Amino acid sequence: MANKIETLHFRSDAFSCDFKRELSYDILGRDILNCAENHASKRGFGFSDLLKANHSWVLSRLSIEMKVMPPIYSNYHIDTWIESVYRMFTNRNFCIKNDAGEVYGYARSIWAMIDNTTRQPLDLMSIYGEEFQQWLGPEIPCEMEPHSRLRPLVDVEPVSTIEAKYSDLDCNGHFNSIKYISHILDLFSKDFYTEHRIRRAELAYVAEAYYGDELSFFVKEQEPLLYQVEIRKHFSRDGKGETIARGLVGFV
Amino acid sequence: MANKIETLHFRSDAFSCDFKRELSYDILGRDILNCAENHASKRGFGFSDLLKANHSWVLSRLSIEMKVMPPIYSNYHIDTWIESVYRMFTNRNFCIKNDAGEVYGYARSIWAMIDNTTRQPLDLMSIYGEEFQQWLGPEIPCEMEPHSRLRPLVDVEPVSTIEAKYSDLDCNGHFNSIKYISHILDLFSKDFYTEHRIRRAELAYVAEAYYGDELSFFVKEQEPLLYQVEIRKHFSRDGKGETIARGLVGFV
Repeated sequence: MANKIETLHFRSDAFSCDFKRELSYDILGRDILNCAENHASKRGFGFSDLLKANHSWVLSRLSIEMKVMPPIYSNYHIDTWIESVYRMFTNRNFCIKNDAGEVYGYARSIWAMIDNTTRQPLDLMSIYGEEFQQWLGPEIPCEMEPHSRLRPLVDVEPVSTIEAKYSDLDCNGHFNSIKYISHILDLFSKDFYTEHRIRRAELAYVAEAYYGDELSFFVKEQEPLLYQVEIRKHFSRDGKGETIARGLVGFV
Repeated sequence: MANKIETLHFRSDAFSCDFKRELSYDILGRDILNCAENHASKRGFGFSDLLKANHSWVLSRLSIEMKVMPPIYSNYHIDTWIESVYRMFTNRNFCIKNDAGEVYGYARSIWAMIDNTTRQPLDLMSIYGEEFQQWLGPEIPCEMEPHSRLRPLVDVEPVSTIEAKYSDLDCNGHFNSIKYISHILDLFSKDFYTEHRIRRAELAYVAEAYYGDELSFFVKEQEPLLYQVEIRKHFSRDGKGETIARGLVGFV
């Protein structure tokens, strides 16, 4: 089973923490995605490997559920493995632990593979179906809820609008998947974070955003401490804009 | 000499890189500060150690000069040591290297120590003067220019204004030292980064900013590809606001 899991090791140093003296959510998010890439590249299907065939991984869903955030000056370890593979998607899970092996939290992600020229999704089963079988770990526990069903928000006005800047871009020149989460978390006040902590954050990536795009953020309280969020590109009062991502942030 | 130097090891994974497929500047900055804290805490004068005496380190200057940024998927290693100590300041340097020991770049920093209650600077020589002697490494090479003299900008209008958000805060609830650099780098366009790379970035931290503060950014071209920057709090057309930081960004 160890062979199915790949682990990377991190430390929540002072400058990696938020004002609550806990690991910053965006750093955790970035570490999680780097773990995904590390697991894949060690097995021959990382970004660089796929590039040879003019293919890319595209992150479709990411959900993170933390019981406790790593406190300042502590080690944390992220396991990742592939739960399952289907024709159009593969499910990759994560477990975040402390030195004693106690679980801080889990994460789930869904990835599709596209052809870089046509930007069309590829049939994972026909390309990697056979090879992936040896890596599948559906029996490895991922004790968090599945991804939520995320419905479009209607009749809402943007609470914030930003322009995509240099530091928002990832290594492909797209808006960085984790930076969406950062901007969403920035919609809540410092006082709110003093009272509450993030229990769960999830995002469905619908379309890409690029440098200079104007992104509007929408929030709706679904139930107490559970917020639906949506990010739209080029929203105007006349039109609805194009949905870039939909998500859910839950606090306790 | 090895005893004076402390080294931490990092990797520029895919999600830690910018659109040029090089390590993101803000991640490098954060790593550098985490190295400072790691070196200090291993020698008994880290943040936690100082807290027992109700003291804190305050970053006064940070200058980073990179010949090459670590490319995507590469290891990088950051050495740090104390160059010198004076009554009010101590100079800490950094060297960023690849696996072969070749130098990517250097950084210089200046730190003061304050009393947490009075917020007044403390006399480093009387507190740590003796103890620091064994750690001083003025002979260790730091082949970059000293900190520049940074003059106040006059007759300039802000090019950008932001409000300090949750993700801008550090573990003390102050505006994160590295986030200032991120916001400054975001003043330049993607096209500009396609043509040029950052040769040197430096900042003098003048006053603290807090959650909700409105920060205005000023830029002036000092000579071709060398930009003076200034960040002011609560700037308005009537007043000049309070200077939070001054800096310089040089490109090639």
